[in-house]
Amino acid sequence: MERIQNDTVYIGRKPMMNYVLAVVSQFNVGSENVIIKARGKSISRAVDVAEVVRKRYVTDAKVREIRIGTEQLPDEAGKTTNVSSIEIFLAK
Amino acid sequence: MERIQNDTVYIGRKPMMNYVLAVVSQFNVGSENVIIKARGKSISRAVDVAEVVRKRYVTDAKVREIRIGTEQLPDEAGKTTNVSSIEIFLAK
Repeated sequence: MERIQNDTVYIGRKPMMNYVLAVVSQFNVGSENVIIKARGKSISRAVDVAEVVRKRYVTDAKVREIRIGTEQLPDEAGKTTNVSSIEIFLAK
Repeated sequence: MERIQNDTVYIGRKPMMNYVLAVVSQFNVGSENVIIKARGKSISRAVDVAEVVRKRYVTDAKVREIRIGTEQLPDEAGKTTNVSSIEIFLAK
């Protein structure tokens, strides 16, 4: 049975290379698709991760699609705040 | 003669709403396509701008395409550094 493997790497506040290596590792264990997801200020780092993976480590990976959106998160006061999000779909 | 108008708004370090209003104004004067461009840490703000425009001001605008890339910029030492970039194409 054919199966498209999808693996997601969530970008947080750790050094960029941690996430680069996480994405590269996913491709190395056989994933054909890796999704890089981030919210808020981590969005810039998500783009950095995708670019470094593509240019330096997995040069046959392509950006298949990029989606942006808005997520509603609870804040400390019990209200919700809107936070932008990004999903970058890399594929070999 | 038919013409596709393309207008670009570059995202810098000013408050987000300045850029939101710049994009909304472009649509209001008749542009059918507005491109939001940013580099480095401003990339997150570019996504915020696109989302706020789309959700609050120009609700018939769609994200037509998103491109990411790497640009080489000269640094103070006369060398070049790589900076990630984003282009968000909004269309009515």
